[in-house]
Amino acid sequence: MRTLIVSALALSAALAASSTAQAEEGMWTFDNFPIARANATLGTNIDQAWLDRVRLSSVKFGGCSAGIVSAEGLVMTNNHCVATCVANLSTQAVNYAETGFAPRSREEELKCPGGSAEILTDIADITERMHAAGAGLEGQAFTRARDAEAGRIEQEACGDATDKRCQVVSLYRGGQFKLYTYKKYSDVRLAWAPEDRAATFGGDLDNFSFPRFAIDAAFIRLYENGAPVATPTHFKWNADKPVEGTPVFVTGSPGATQRLLTQDQLFTIRDVVLPMDQLLASELRGRLIRFSQESEENAFIAMDPIVGLENTYKRGLGRMRALVDQDFMAKRAEAEVDFQSRIADRAGDATGSSSATEEADRAAAEAVDAMEGAVAAAEGRPYVPKQMAYPWSELSAVQPIARELYPAMALLEGGTGMGTTPVAGGSQLFNWARTLVRGAQEREKPSAERLPEFADSRLAGVQSGLFAERPVYPALDQVRMEWWLSKTREWLTVDDPRMAVLLGDESPEARSARLVQGTTLGDPAVRRALWEGGLAAIQASDDPMIQYLLTLQEPTRAIRADWEARVDAPTARASEQLAALRFQAYGDSVYPDATGTLRLTYGQIEGTDVPGQRFGAFTTFSGLWDRATGSAPFDVAPKLLAARERIDGDTVLNMAVSSDTIGGSSGSPVVNAAGEILGANFDSTVLTQRNAYGYDRNVNRSVIVTTGAVTTALRDVYGMERLVAELGVE
Amino acid sequence: MRTLIVSALALSAALAASSTAQAEEGMWTFDNFPIARANATLGTNIDQAWLDRVRLSSVKFGGCSAGIVSAEGLVMTNNHCVATCVANLSTQAVNYAETGFAPRSREEELKCPGGSAEILTDIADITERMHAAGAGLEGQAFTRARDAEAGRIEQEACGDATDKRCQVVSLYRGGQFKLYTYKKYSDVRLAWAPEDRAATFGGDLDNFSFPRFAIDAAFIRLYENGAPVATPTHFKWNADKPVEGTPVFVTGSPGATQRLLTQDQLFTIRDVVLPMDQLLASELRGRLIRFSQESEENAFIAMDPIVGLENTYKRGLGRMRALVDQDFMAKRAEAEVDFQSRIADRAGDATGSSSATEEADRAAAEAVDAMEGAVAAAEGRPYVPKQMAYPWSELSAVQPIARELYPAMALLEGGTGMGTTPVAGGSQLFNWARTLVRGAQEREKPSAERLPEFADSRLAGVQSGLFAERPVYPALDQVRMEWWLSKTREWLTVDDPRMAVLLGDESPEARSARLVQGTTLGDPAVRRALWEGGLAAIQASDDPMIQYLLTLQEPTRAIRADWEARVDAPTARASEQLAALRFQAYGDSVYPDATGTLRLTYGQIEGTDVPGQRFGAFTTFSGLWDRATGSAPFDVAPKLLAARERIDGDTVLNMAVSSDTIGGSSGSPVVNAAGEILGANFDSTVLTQRNAYGYDRNVNRSVIVTTGAVTTALRDVYGMERLVAELGVE
Repeated sequence: MRTLIVSALALSAALAASSTAQAEEGMWTFDNFPIARANATLGTNIDQAWLDRVRLSSVKFGGCSAGIVSAEGLVMTNNHCVATCVANLSTQAVNYAETGFAPRSREEELKCPGGSAEILTDIADITERMHAAGAGLEGQAFTRARDAEAGRIEQEACGDATDKRCQVVSLYRGGQFKLYTYKKYSDVRLAWAPEDRAATFGGDLDNFSFPRFAIDAAFIRLYENGAPVATPTHFKWNADKPVEGTPVFVTGSPGATQRLLTQDQLFTIRDVVLPMDQLLASELRGRLIRFSQESEENAFIAMDPIVGLENTYKRGLGRMRALVDQDFMAKRAEAEVDFQSRIADRAGDATGSSSATEEADRAAAEAVDAMEGAVAAAEGRPYVPKQMAYPWSELSAVQPIARELYPAMALLEGGTGMGTTPVAGGSQLFNWARTLVRGAQEREKPSAERLPEFADSRLAGVQSGLFAERPVYPALDQVRMEWWLSKTREWLTVDDPRMAVLLGDESPEARSARLVQGTTLGDPAVRRALWEGGLAAIQASDDPMIQYLLTLQEPTRAIRADWEARVDAPTARASEQLAALRFQAYGDSVYPDATGTLRLTYGQIEGTDVPGQRFGAFTTFSGLWDRATGSAPFDVAPKLLAARERIDGDTVLNMAVSSDTIGGSSGSPVVNAAGEILGANFDSTVLTQRNAYGYDRNVNRSVIVTTGAVTTALRDVYGMERLVAELGVE
Repeated sequence: MRTLIVSALALSAALAASSTAQAEEGMWTFDNFPIARANATLGTNIDQAWLDRVRLSSVKFGGCSAGIVSAEGLVMTNNHCVATCVANLSTQAVNYAETGFAPRSREEELKCPGGSAEILTDIADITERMHAAGAGLEGQAFTRARDAEAGRIEQEACGDATDKRCQVVSLYRGGQFKLYTYKKYSDVRLAWAPEDRAATFGGDLDNFSFPRFAIDAAFIRLYENGAPVATPTHFKWNADKPVEGTPVFVTGSPGATQRLLTQDQLFTIRDVVLPMDQLLASELRGRLIRFSQESEENAFIAMDPIVGLENTYKRGLGRMRALVDQDFMAKRAEAEVDFQSRIADRAGDATGSSSATEEADRAAAEAVDAMEGAVAAAEGRPYVPKQMAYPWSELSAVQPIARELYPAMALLEGGTGMGTTPVAGGSQLFNWARTLVRGAQEREKPSAERLPEFADSRLAGVQSGLFAERPVYPALDQVRMEWWLSKTREWLTVDDPRMAVLLGDESPEARSARLVQGTTLGDPAVRRALWEGGLAAIQASDDPMIQYLLTLQEPTRAIRADWEARVDAPTARASEQLAALRFQAYGDSVYPDATGTLRLTYGQIEGTDVPGQRFGAFTTFSGLWDRATGSAPFDVAPKLLAARERIDGDTVLNMAVSSDTIGGSSGSPVVNAAGEILGANFDSTVLTQRNAYGYDRNVNRSVIVTTGAVTTALRDVYGMERLVAELGVE
């Protein structure tokens, strides 16, 4: 035991390790932002007070980011972030996607169904408590104990408050746990959206590219008790012409990166996860494209889903390309070797014949035992060194299981955090039924024993999603369910016993029609009654979709249990150990993978000049006129086109910045060193998709719609002088 | 020079190298079949006369294989091999796919539009002539010189004969060249086809699997001068119950394998070719599925294309899985190392510090120079040793170029031999226009200067495809063109200058509609007139599809020239060198990759017991009744179901054999040691798809419809006693 502790101290002493991170790399948490390094790199002078103001002006809105831009709760985000809200508020006859949404008065601003917004108010460290909860446990017991502890922590901190949300956040893949507390706004209203084509000029073809010419911006407003929220802390609107080289900070909630994964873990994504997900998405895309061609009504219904699907697909394609880019992957492999050799060097293992991985594994086991032993010693309890603590080998051993289970897990249950296959194709009716059935079953148990998404602390969010009044299009849901059932049968094979439950002797088409046409879950009152009626009401329901979901519980819960026990739990344990080792090897210059929580990144306004991606930093309205052909998606939106003479063609429309972003950063405020907002992040380039697995300073570029362009649109195109004044533009 | 020759002799002396090929591995040519080895492995006693009879009873029918089974030109193949013929002969009202095709008399047998069949009558070695044609040339000059020489050889041997075809075949990727001479039949009539569902029970879901329950058989008949062809040499029909362990030979024309590719070449297929092709196919599949749901007519139109697409897609998926199977790929890597080390060992290079690949490369260069030098010396001409003959490095250097050019080459020109993306989605009208325009332009030049597919020796085949009377469905062609134009724009990116030619300012939908609706090429008389009118007629044509194809010539010919110069030519040169080295390392126990030409493989009737694939050797009609659910595609075809009481349930329906097959082997006669036909190969398992890249005796299983099942279907279901008698069944 003694040698282990000595070894741990030796490792700690070496914490001053240099980081291999590049100057502007990192999606940093607000409680560990490298102020000095950023100031040194950019020549700025930000401080803690600046950080606090930026954090309190930053808003999380669904899967997007946003920023407060007035003292009266006005928030800028991307148009594509309000697209579902716009679709929910529209009918084929009154279609705001087509016309834009430009309310003449504040009273005409419309509530987004199910919309909510959050501001991060507090961060607290709960690492010790979370690690203790899982100590000594393995498999599903480990997962469940951790989930239960997270639910308890959240409930203790937020109780039943409806204007707060508490969230246990795992950082560094379990290396740290933090409790994030948010001020929550459940009344979010749409304050302005441009014509959809003004925001999506170039459509899927220009998506993930630059130069761009898209006014992908919109405004929402935070309400509380029926009135706009007072927001004295907000970003000052700066619509000046942007200047190349200006230091910028991007504040938002990037969704997910996999930079801390081992190479073996990435190969599973490359070989199994992305190919399946992308192939499935492609077929759904084909079905939806043809569906949308069948009638005007179908075109209206399918527009938002197709845009979302194409965006996900194109991002996935960028990632597939990154994972087969031999240079990129070679660099990543080198970084892994560097990490392993630092660990091995420190352990001083002299077994010359073993591989670098084996040495690193052994050293890691020793280090982990040393650390945990030291904690145990400090607490005066005995410690038994673990035999399993070989994180690289552990993670390698998990991969064949993950490869085997992934298709069934993704198709039947989802939520792997690895891929993008939507269960039941994202059918709204199916998803509601699933929430109702699962929710009823889970609420029969104490909170700590439930599936984590139904812990007491999460129920408010579940309910607001379930009760929201939003339109349902059965024809669309049917396309999705047909696709999902036929693809599930194909990937699981027709002889998989689970197919007897999923499909029986029916065809995918017949079963989908029966369920979609027979269900009454489209009515929010029905959903509310079933939720409030609990398990008894669910079991008594003769709704075919509810009955279907009841029969699906056994196979879907079984694959999830299998996945949690054999993939999630060993991955979490090994990743946690790797995280601890990484701190030792590189110190706190290591930033955590993105997890959909608030981060700050920094960089500057600039173009690129790498092969396959050469462009300057800016585009202008003149460029838009030049690029327009008149054929969709290169047709200028009618109101925008009509305003052409009023618009200064030299006004900068979009710009590129070098900050480190990823999906989820959409709508992120782009802020200068004075804390003024210069634009909203809305995209990146295809090459930047490698960002999921590793940062590349030369390649990484985010695409920004400028405040200047938004001001022009509001004033010169959409008659929103009211908002221009609110923004303080003279 | 002297040392080089000595070294070549030393290498030749080592020819007795043991082969690493497994006992039953290999798709052997009929002029190099390992008679002794096969007899030793199987305990049989076949000889050259047996081989000759089998060869002369084997028929190539389109992309399929077939076998003569009576003295009056009757030929058995798969139903899926006549599916396009059946579709061409059907209308929505008289749909033979639905009813089956069971002509009461021989006079009612119907000609397959554009159908032709061939029997291989002669094989001659032309290696020396072909190698001499490319000697000293590089890039496109090399490709063109080779192509021209092949055209000359074919023309010299076959002239303008319409009942013969001559084909220069490259074996061992350029290691040998042979001239294959075929007897050709251009009048092929459909003699019997079952109901489609009897042949496709289980549809795409059961495709590439076993156990199977599909009567995937059909008969055609060879005609000449309006009368059935006398075929005294044919397979004797043996409808006895098959016995497990029986030695079998499969004779047919497997399409293409990539077993002789280097690992680097395979990675290009894994990383670039298959992902793109499969993603594109998935979207087309989604579009066609939805299209077919829109009306009865669309369902009829789209059936054959969807079946073909799903078959290609599923095969591709099996290959993708093989290429990311870590065990399988590790074995393949070992085999490459073995090959390289044999070469390096022989060269006796003592540079200890270099890698195995570098050593092998150097040794290869030396050996190649030695061989070519010896030939030059024998011919009394000077020889300059080449500096470029490092085949592995050469092939590695080609890969980044292939990766970069592949999408444009596949989408604009096709014919890479690597992937499956159909140009213009396989649009019939587009393809005819392409043939007409290219053909007119090429026929202006001497044969030797043309694109090889328009050499004099190939024109008869081109014409018969072009003039065939077959239905065209503009709605289907439009779906395909929309898909192709939109995907080409997506993969090339909208800013690719070629898109200005392909699409201009139109949308894919508008351009497709204009071309498909405006063309008159659906009329065979129009096609004939344009072909016979030559370039003047083409240039004068106001047919929009013809005009479109005229504008496409510049960009499509440019990418093809680029591909030929920078990918094809260096690949051919290096592969040829590798082939020579392989003979030295492994002797003539090496068999060539499949190339769509006649091969013989051997194995036995048996099931498998490997993970993911456990089954016995046989299925029966009883098993079919048990598996049927009544829901498509598990509904028994009506006539077959009606005959249930007349059918002995124990009759073997399908069986599995271990012979080495691949796509193109469809319809291949399965023959016993007595030369009797026991069935027709129609499928293999998903795991068997790795066969493209390497043979695995434990996994590889082909799926056969038995002669017993066919006899039962003819006699007990379809009232074809006429054919039963012709087959000699008592």
